[in-house]
Amino acid sequence: MSTKSKRHVRYPIPRSRRRSTPGAPPGSIVVHEDALPSRMNVLAYGPDDVESAEDISLEAIPGLLKRWPVVWIDVTGLGTAAVIEGLGRIFRLHSLALEDVVNVHQRPKVEDYEDFTFIVCNMLNAEPALATEQFSIFVGERFVLTFQERPGDCFGALRERIRHGRGRLRKGGPDYLAYALIDTLVDNYFAPVERYGDLIEQLELLVVERANKSVVRQIHAARRDLFLLRKTIWAQREMLAALSRDAYVGFTETTQIFLRDCYDHTVQLLDMTETYRDFATNLFELYLSTVSNRMNEIMKVLTIIATIFMPLSVIASIFGMNFNTETSPWNMPELNWYLGYPFALLLMALVAAGMLVMFWRKGWLGGDR
Amino acid sequence: MSTKSKRHVRYPIPRSRRRSTPGAPPGSIVVHEDALPSRMNVLAYGPDDVESAEDISLEAIPGLLKRWPVVWIDVTGLGTAAVIEGLGRIFRLHSLALEDVVNVHQRPKVEDYEDFTFIVCNMLNAEPALATEQFSIFVGERFVLTFQERPGDCFGALRERIRHGRGRLRKGGPDYLAYALIDTLVDNYFAPVERYGDLIEQLELLVVERANKSVVRQIHAARRDLFLLRKTIWAQREMLAALSRDAYVGFTETTQIFLRDCYDHTVQLLDMTETYRDFATNLFELYLSTVSNRMNEIMKVLTIIATIFMPLSVIASIFGMNFNTETSPWNMPELNWYLGYPFALLLMALVAAGMLVMFWRKGWLGGDR
Amino acid sequence: MSTKSKRHVRYPIPRSRRRSTPGAPPGSIVVHEDALPSRMNVLAYGPDDVESAEDISLEAIPGLLKRWPVVWIDVTGLGTAAVIEGLGRIFRLHSLALEDVVNVHQRPKVEDYEDFTFIVCNMLNAEPALATEQFSIFVGERFVLTFQERPGDCFGALRERIRHGRGRLRKGGPDYLAYALIDTLVDNYFAPVERYGDLIEQLELLVVERANKSVVRQIHAARRDLFLLRKTIWAQREMLAALSRDAYVGFTETTQIFLRDCYDHTVQLLDMTETYRDFATNLFELYLSTVSNRMNEIMKVLTIIATIFMPLSVIASIFGMNFNTETSPWNMPELNWYLGYPFALLLMALVAAGMLVMFWRKGWLGGDR
Amino acid sequence: MSTKSKRHVRYPIPRSRRRSTPGAPPGSIVVHEDALPSRMNVLAYGPDDVESAEDISLEAIPGLLKRWPVVWIDVTGLGTAAVIEGLGRIFRLHSLALEDVVNVHQRPKVEDYEDFTFIVCNMLNAEPALATEQFSIFVGERFVLTFQERPGDCFGALRERIRHGRGRLRKGGPDYLAYALIDTLVDNYFAPVERYGDLIEQLELLVVERANKSVVRQIHAARRDLFLLRKTIWAQREMLAALSRDAYVGFTETTQIFLRDCYDHTVQLLDMTETYRDFATNLFELYLSTVSNRMNEIMKVLTIIATIFMPLSVIASIFGMNFNTETSPWNMPELNWYLGYPFALLLMALVAAGMLVMFWRKGWLGGDR
Amino acid sequence: MSTKSKRHVRYPIPRSRRRSTPGAPPGSIVVHEDALPSRMNVLAYGPDDVESAEDISLEAIPGLLKRWPVVWIDVTGLGTAAVIEGLGRIFRLHSLALEDVVNVHQRPKVEDYEDFTFIVCNMLNAEPALATEQFSIFVGERFVLTFQERPGDCFGALRERIRHGRGRLRKGGPDYLAYALIDTLVDNYFAPVERYGDLIEQLELLVVERANKSVVRQIHAARRDLFLLRKTIWAQREMLAALSRDAYVGFTETTQIFLRDCYDHTVQLLDMTETYRDFATNLFELYLSTVSNRMNEIMKVLTIIATIFMPLSVIASIFGMNFNTETSPWNMPELNWYLGYPFALLLMALVAAGMLVMFWRKGWLGGDR
Repeated sequence: MSTKSKRHVRYPIPRSRRRSTPGAPPGSIVVHEDALPSRMNVLAYGPDDVESAEDISLEAIPGLLKRWPVVWIDVTGLGTAAVIEGLGRIFRLHSLALEDVVNVHQRPKVEDYEDFTFIVCNMLNAEPALATEQFSIFVGERFVLTFQERPGDCFGALRERIRHGRGRLRKGGPDYLAYALIDTLVDNYFAPVERYGDLIEQLELLVVERANKSVVRQIHAARRDLFLLRKTIWAQREMLAALSRDAYVGFTETTQIFLRDCYDHTVQLLDMTETYRDFATNLFELYLSTVSNRMNEIMKVLTIIATIFMPLSVIASIFGMNFNTETSPWNMPELNWYLGYPFALLLMALVAAGMLVMFWRKGWLGGDR
Repeated sequence: MSTKSKRHVRYPIPRSRRRSTPGAPPGSIVVHEDALPSRMNVLAYGPDDVESAEDISLEAIPGLLKRWPVVWIDVTGLGTAAVIEGLGRIFRLHSLALEDVVNVHQRPKVEDYEDFTFIVCNMLNAEPALATEQFSIFVGERFVLTFQERPGDCFGALRERIRHGRGRLRKGGPDYLAYALIDTLVDNYFAPVERYGDLIEQLELLVVERANKSVVRQIHAARRDLFLLRKTIWAQREMLAALSRDAYVGFTETTQIFLRDCYDHTVQLLDMTETYRDFATNLFELYLSTVSNRMNEIMKVLTIIATIFMPLSVIASIFGMNFNTETSPWNMPELNWYLGYPFALLLMALVAAGMLVMFWRKGWLGGDR
Repeated sequence: MSTKSKRHVRYPIPRSRRRSTPGAPPGSIVVHEDALPSRMNVLAYGPDDVESAEDISLEAIPGLLKRWPVVWIDVTGLGTAAVIEGLGRIFRLHSLALEDVVNVHQRPKVEDYEDFTFIVCNMLNAEPALATEQFSIFVGERFVLTFQERPGDCFGALRERIRHGRGRLRKGGPDYLAYALIDTLVDNYFAPVERYGDLIEQLELLVVERANKSVVRQIHAARRDLFLLRKTIWAQREMLAALSRDAYVGFTETTQIFLRDCYDHTVQLLDMTETYRDFATNLFELYLSTVSNRMNEIMKVLTIIATIFMPLSVIASIFGMNFNTETSPWNMPELNWYLGYPFALLLMALVAAGMLVMFWRKGWLGGDR
Repeated sequence: MSTKSKRHVRYPIPRSRRRSTPGAPPGSIVVHEDALPSRMNVLAYGPDDVESAEDISLEAIPGLLKRWPVVWIDVTGLGTAAVIEGLGRIFRLHSLALEDVVNVHQRPKVEDYEDFTFIVCNMLNAEPALATEQFSIFVGERFVLTFQERPGDCFGALRERIRHGRGRLRKGGPDYLAYALIDTLVDNYFAPVERYGDLIEQLELLVVERANKSVVRQIHAARRDLFLLRKTIWAQREMLAALSRDAYVGFTETTQIFLRDCYDHTVQLLDMTETYRDFATNLFELYLSTVSNRMNEIMKVLTIIATIFMPLSVIASIFGMNFNTETSPWNMPELNWYLGYPFALLLMALVAAGMLVMFWRKGWLGGDR
Repeated sequence: MSTKSKRHVRYPIPRSRRRSTPGAPPGSIVVHEDALPSRMNVLAYGPDDVESAEDISLEAIPGLLKRWPVVWIDVTGLGTAAVIEGLGRIFRLHSLALEDVVNVHQRPKVEDYEDFTFIVCNMLNAEPALATEQFSIFVGERFVLTFQERPGDCFGALRERIRHGRGRLRKGGPDYLAYALIDTLVDNYFAPVERYGDLIEQLELLVVERANKSVVRQIHAARRDLFLLRKTIWAQREMLAALSRDAYVGFTETTQIFLRDCYDHTVQLLDMTETYRDFATNLFELYLSTVSNRMNEIMKVLTIIATIFMPLSVIASIFGMNFNTETSPWNMPELNWYLGYPFALLLMALVAAGMLVMFWRKGWLGGDR
């Protein structure tokens, strides 16, 4: 069991955004002390060529923006205020949006600013433990600017596709890149969500076989995790619904058709989490009924044993009384009968048999199938 | 019981669409390894004549499209990428739609493209086990293109009607054929759904008669299956609501009146599944109360037995004590009474009778009706 | 109890419409084998005069339509295809509507056709058992055409009012007649629904007095019936909302004011069924808590008895041991004491009294009020 | 406890309107036999003066309407058809509205007629028992006509304000008077609703202290009453929302600002009833868990007692066996040991101590806090 | 445990507004007897300078309004009618709004008057106990007027920011100040709400370790408090949604962007309370299942003990019977066997071992993990 519960690591309870103190001025970018230092990687491309560089400086950006139709700057680590503020100046980002970038644990959302569209997603990391990471995307005329909390993401295949010019990516604009990023994030949810489906099927077998505390704790954990997953996916769905329906800076109608497809996937994910959650709840009720049944069985055993042996005990005790048989012929004459002892044993056997017949008639013998 | 649970085969937990890997380019048609090879059957007709052929090749299609007002190409098996891509080229289908065709387990939906309408339905197969199969329909100006996962469907009667020119079918356009297909699919749900109604009536009797584990497991399975059926029918209803209300390529208003009727049927199906689900939940609660009642009865038996025999046991043990009657007249003089033993037995009988009277007064005797 | 459960006959689980086979052409009128033969009664009237006839033939209808401003043809029995198809031809009814007439178990609804309005209602029959019957109404410029499954309905008083020219009926058009029919159907629900209110009040008393299996089964049945009643009334409400709000062929605004009143009545009915259902659910929970309480009481009795008599039994058994008092002065000297036996009895009495004091302190004596 | 349950008298289950028989013509005014005879009181006023009279006749009304800008006719008792019909003629009221006046138990609502606005409210009477009474209001250009079932209402202070010209009332029109009436009715709900808040706080303490049947019955009653109160307030809220938002005959925008305030109060009432209901439900669950806990405690006592004394009983019985010590040295040599009896008692003490240690380790001793 | 329950002080049950008596004229300002005397502090500022004064008089206000672009008058204590009415006259506030100020316990809301916007918020005080205080805000062209029930608030940092001209505050208008106030109030909710998250994590551990009454009571209290918190936050969210979406007197679009951010925070708070509430409910169910499991374990112990010792007791009692071995060779010959006593002990050991094997096979030994 322990291996299982390790594989299905808990999805953590969400905490709130952590702004320094209530009353602090809004829109102030205060990086968190435990945030990693920020590094910028760039992947700039047009239909014909591509340029990529790691760990670039702020000064390199304006040049890139001039040379390439699409510039993707990927910032990992939210700990260097200078970098984030610098990007804010270069791309003229609103301070409230930047505040949302550094105060992670935002709900997924899309916001419409004058020059750019600001999107917040949740990236689901399965390793080392199931946890979400905030992934913020700014989409402008010629750029895509993304922020993630830690290095390591699920965009390896995507980067390869850009570098090797496979698929539509190189021909598309920044909006298509943003779509491709979101689509990858959403696709990344399927495997972990499905694992809960498997878990529930296993638990259903366990509940029927041996309903113990470990099972109920696993069901409880699954319900809890699915509840949290559902909330995240729900917000993501809302975001995609808005993005595929309304007009946003930098998004073309062609890309919106693709976003609609992506929206369909979140609906499917939502469907799955709801189904699994409903099943987990039913499993819990099944568990309770199994416990009740077992209690019934235990009580039956106790009752059968007590009902058989208590009368026997009384009979034996009666013949163990010390009435003086010599005082009168009424005092325990059985003790002196020739077949007194066999008679007593037979009496006990008859009582026990009678009780057994009674229980057999009640259907208490033979267990509960 | 076992025969029953075999007849009501489980409706399987839904899995997600299975796209190769997260990050793969959208709209790429990757057939699944376990998919069957694709075969195309055609049924082309006009008001006056009909032509049908099995296992045709892609080259034959353009000719058919020229000759006939309505061409129905029915593809069984989603395993041959060449066939699916070829159809995509001939009918100029969007790659996202084709991706949805091969990645089965889509929710029922209708999508509006420029040249055609794309509909995803669920076909319910009762044999060999209750399971759904994705049925995809493309409706264009002069064609209906359908995809099913496996050979074998419920359209036998429909094909006969076309071949023999019965009913409106031959006079209708592709939209009327699409309606007839969907209507048949929906009608196919009624028998399986009703079977759950029968099952619940049987279970209601069983719960009252003998509430055992098998019953609770069957109720649990019924709730689960009805939940899944309801989800499928719900999505189908949404799809039909859109199709009968909004304008879609190739659909006329006359056909929309028929689709409204079909929509009514899904509402009725939904109603039935909801009713059955509510009843199954109530049954579960009835079961729990029955178990509680039974526990009460068991405890009553135990308590009655213990309450009667424990005092008897004490009385008998008292008269079995070995106090020396010769030391003093206070030491167990009863042992030497002339009627000591009958007195002891009478005392026991009185105690037992008193207890029985008490239980009779409490209404514990006579069982629970 | 049995008389009660007979008076409140079960409301049956709804079955689906029964169209011959999936794949049959839509709009085909296939009468059911167990349907009664169709008979047509007519009641034709104007402000000044009235004409009524029973069991008329199709040929008589055109004449009636010419002579009278309002012709009400009431068809009882849905078993004669010729009659139904004949009416369809005369009044130019859409085949889908006629199909809904013969395939009973439709949800209440209103449908808007070019020449007429088609309304489906549920008629609640209290005798011989609580059951609904489909009542279909076609309202046109000069006619009202109604279909019921069986002879016998609740419109006796209404027919009298027409014949004797009482009230507005003779002055109103076909729409006012349709309103009067629906209003009568809705009013007919009040008495049966209220009976559930009475039942629940009785059950509430029973739950508190003696919560046995019969009570829980009656609560279960009431919940189930109210659920079904609520669904029927809900659909009827939707239908009346549409009819009193939107424009339908043949319905004037004056009549819509009356329909709004009728709509209010269904809202009130809905309110009552929801209230009763909520109460039934609470009753069920009250029942469960009562069972738990009773179990507690039973366990208390058992525990009190066991706790008192087990120590007594041990004490008596100790003094029944056979240690040889002659071997040593340490071996059961009590047996030879002058007051050994009274001492033993006193010891037992003290133990029993101590236990009783403990239970009294715990508040276990005196029962649970 | 009994004094409490008397103070919080039950809120009665609602019954339906009672129209004579289904099929009776709509809009017919049939007074109920148990209705009190109707009496009319009048309070007519302008900014400068006021005139009031009790038990006036129908003939006096036209004169009043000519002389005064605002005439409030308050009818108590709905048993005199002549009065009600007479008023209907004088003020040209629609027969459906008058039918709603006499068929009490209507849901609160507002209806828009050509010449007047018709409002139905519920008046909550706390004395002698918590019950609602229908209060119907007609508001026209120059009149307010109200109907109540019984004499005695909560408008004493309001009448004083009119008579003494305090506040805005004398300067306002009929709509402001209607607002003042409704506002008073709504304010009248606060005290009874708050009493349920107090009740729930008391019950919460009782549940923790001693969870007995009386507590559960009070919780059950509170849930039921709050459910009914909530329904009434909900309908009242809907009515006020419509009245403060839409245009109604005789209502000015200035008065609608006041009605919005009144609407806020019903929202607050609704909030309170929902909060209390949720708390009552939680209390019920707390009660159930308390009962379970107590059962656990009882079972622990039983198990501890049985587990300690059963082995003792067996030990004592063993040394009470009658094997012949003279036959062989293997037969119960303990009986002849010098310290046989002390050894047996010690053995028992050790067994009992061992069991106690085991229970102490399991944490069963010391009760459950 | 007690330290914990002290830290998480109860959130009190809301009471209604307390208007003197039903029927009192609306819009009358009747201060409550337990309200503190009102004191006015002022903070007036422009982009370049600031003026602050404590405990000012009504006469000082007009001068301030002339000199400064933004005048914030903060009234603490709602007990001096003269002050509140005076402010009403100076700022021409509607009497209904002022009534809402003094009748605290209003739901958060925003109301649109001609000259000003009236906002009601709840301020959450964590010290000395978790409780809300009504915070009313009037926003006009050049002023912000706030009312709080008691001195002591969370705006210290905000006042500092104004005084030292940090951030945008000095450059913004009254609407920006109102935003800053509301934002601070909302931010103030995060810490207390998160504490419930911690509490629930602790309780989850406790439920698994030792599920006792104290745990269930803490869960109950947490559910209750979260329910109330959620209601408050919900109303606050509604208020912010309206304020950031619709046009209100004195609010500019620039400020509405900030209010949208503030709205996002309430959505996040709502999310957290809902998540915690759902978890608390699940915890409660986990607790119930734990209690059931423990009951099962207790019953198992009892049954094992009874099932082992009852047969032993019967065997010992049998060999303690007093049948006369001299009367016949059938009467208890075992008593005179050479190995009679060892045989009896062996028999007992075998029976006990057999029972243990049975329980081991049933899996009852070894506890439930």
